[in-house]
Amino acid sequence: MKFKQLFKSSADWMRREGPSGDIVLSSRVRLARNLPGHSYPGWAEPPQREAVLGELLPIVEALPEMKGAFRAELGEMELLEKQFLVERHLVSREHAAREGGCAAVVDEDQSLSIMINEEDHLRMQAIVPGLDIVGAHRAIDQIDTVLDSQVGFAFDDQFGYLTSCPTNLGTGLRASAMLHLPGLVLADHVKQVVAAANKIGLAVRGIYGEGTEALANFFQISNQNTLGEEESVILERLQSVIEQIVTQERNARATLVEENRAMICDRIGRGYGVLRHAHVLSSKEALEHLSMLRLGADLGVLNPNAGLLRTLFAEIQPAHLQLAAGRTIEPEERDALRADFLQRRLKSLKPPNMLPLGNDIEGASTPEEEDSE
Amino acid sequence: MKFKQLFKSSADWMRREGPSGDIVLSSRVRLARNLPGHSYPGWAEPPQREAVLGELLPIVEALPEMKGAFRAELGEMELLEKQFLVERHLVSREHAAREGGCAAVVDEDQSLSIMINEEDHLRMQAIVPGLDIVGAHRAIDQIDTVLDSQVGFAFDDQFGYLTSCPTNLGTGLRASAMLHLPGLVLADHVKQVVAAANKIGLAVRGIYGEGTEALANFFQISNQNTLGEEESVILERLQSVIEQIVTQERNARATLVEENRAMICDRIGRGYGVLRHAHVLSSKEALEHLSMLRLGADLGVLNPNAGLLRTLFAEIQPAHLQLAAGRTIEPEERDALRADFLQRRLKSLKPPNMLPLGNDIEGASTPEEEDSE
Repeated sequence: MKFKQLFKSSADWMRREGPSGDIVLSSRVRLARNLPGHSYPGWAEPPQREAVLGELLPIVEALPEMKGAFRAELGEMELLEKQFLVERHLVSREHAAREGGCAAVVDEDQSLSIMINEEDHLRMQAIVPGLDIVGAHRAIDQIDTVLDSQVGFAFDDQFGYLTSCPTNLGTGLRASAMLHLPGLVLADHVKQVVAAANKIGLAVRGIYGEGTEALANFFQISNQNTLGEEESVILERLQSVIEQIVTQERNARATLVEENRAMICDRIGRGYGVLRHAHVLSSKEALEHLSMLRLGADLGVLNPNAGLLRTLFAEIQPAHLQLAAGRTIEPEERDALRADFLQRRLKSLKPPNMLPLGNDIEGASTPEEEDSE
Repeated sequence: MKFKQLFKSSADWMRREGPSGDIVLSSRVRLARNLPGHSYPGWAEPPQREAVLGELLPIVEALPEMKGAFRAELGEMELLEKQFLVERHLVSREHAAREGGCAAVVDEDQSLSIMINEEDHLRMQAIVPGLDIVGAHRAIDQIDTVLDSQVGFAFDDQFGYLTSCPTNLGTGLRASAMLHLPGLVLADHVKQVVAAANKIGLAVRGIYGEGTEALANFFQISNQNTLGEEESVILERLQSVIEQIVTQERNARATLVEENRAMICDRIGRGYGVLRHAHVLSSKEALEHLSMLRLGADLGVLNPNAGLLRTLFAEIQPAHLQLAAGRTIEPEERDALRADFLQRRLKSLKPPNMLPLGNDIEGASTPEEEDSE
């Protein structure tokens, strides 16, 4: 698979809506694994890294799941292409910044990604749509078993899988889900949710993982601990906590509609109005308004085509936008291009019809006629 | 004329577009006059004020220009009605706040307003559409001449017309124009214009005169000096300075379109998008977006019905809105009502077509189809 094909296709989790897909965009599990008797990538000399890459790459590419896969040779790719992989969550920002001696292999569905010589010799991840932590683990666990039988991962009877950083020691497992929580944000309850999650050993991060801030009401929730617990315990606890947060988000939305209808209608309406008619839009602002359209779709006041919003969240990002235009573009012009792109993509989206949320304005108008604008 | 009729009608300057009407909404001249041998209203005892009112009111109402006029007895009017008169610039905020012993008479066209026992015994004003300082003066000068011949205003050979406050002494004349200067504001040149105007003795104020800030790119420019110059000198200088500012505004707009097309399109587009789809709008925000629609109409990218925007600038103000709803409404609900009102009033306004401003985005879309939303 060539980069161009990868770029032209959506990831499986962008196309399909999974369980609790109104709130959980995707679930992801990644495993950190290493070869015994080799320096970790951060300590290895270039020839040592090349040797590990030379050993692992053919094995990874030979996996049946990787038929037709895309091989990202990060030392040879354009900056925009690497940034695209980061925006699609297929490689980490750190991995994209590396030069030679490392690679990533991405399956046709963009569900599986195996990074070689990231912080560990292998970082293997699966992303699935919606809330399905166990399903994501199952997908990558099969690959882990096959590879382990072929290369024999570094393992210690007391500590479990050995990893470059002790925070990954043991299971080497990081499971996460990407949640869209506009209800909890607008009701100003998200701080409590974050605090409660932190208390039981979960991390809450922004859209691009560690060190990034929450953006446009998206939160990534993941386990912190990898040591001293069975995989299944880690996965089930995370799944169960996220189910609770999903319920809280649903309740927050219902309460907002009940008690703060005007504000909700206003945010959704403005999101629509600005995205349809603005001519300059930063990623951040565009994501915020798209978040409101997504909320509007969930509340039944907007009817976008299936998957449109999930796709747009990706497509408006800087590398996506520049690759689509076929050139590097300065931020200012990019913001104009983004606005233009969104105007075109949302052209057939009808204005919100707020009636499903009730109507509490005395003397308020009847709903907009669909062809009024 | 009953209040209800006054409320239902637009002012002449709202209906008609005058000279340089793309930039100058209206021109206004007011004269301050007093009866000799009577305490000024601020110093008079209530019976003295009543006596002056009793003398002047029948004379004012007998003027042929005041046939079918509305008599505002401010001591007996509802708060909302008084606030409406302020929003229409027919009485001053100070006059509206007064209780008994004062009144205002407003002609059918809402072009002439004569306040009795404001700061002076008589404050007589004429508002005309567009830039026509001399025309506004002519309209009120005729009335001044008639009234002077009937009551003989307090006049001093050295000082001219005597007034309660020395800042009005001499001509008693305050001439002003209401300018819409989005180009100079967006180009960040408005401070220089204000400074230059101040230097030659002109005051630049907000939409409601003294002590108010510029709002939504509207500026009221008026003479400061009333003493030591002929009326005609004051009027002609003001007219000439405003003509220069009009030219500067036109140049600023042309330069912005040339050099900052995306920003201009963005502001106009957002104004349209927000006014069409928001559900909560403060007066301030609504005025700001209406200012951008007005700019869009001036630049030929929007085609509102004649007078629609001039009328809306008035109609979205708090008292206008509450009187239309027939009740007093708390600010929060008012903002929802205002948004709803604007959605309905702008329903048939087509989206902006930015093509007249050129098109500098590579790969940009064709203009929106008119019935696309």
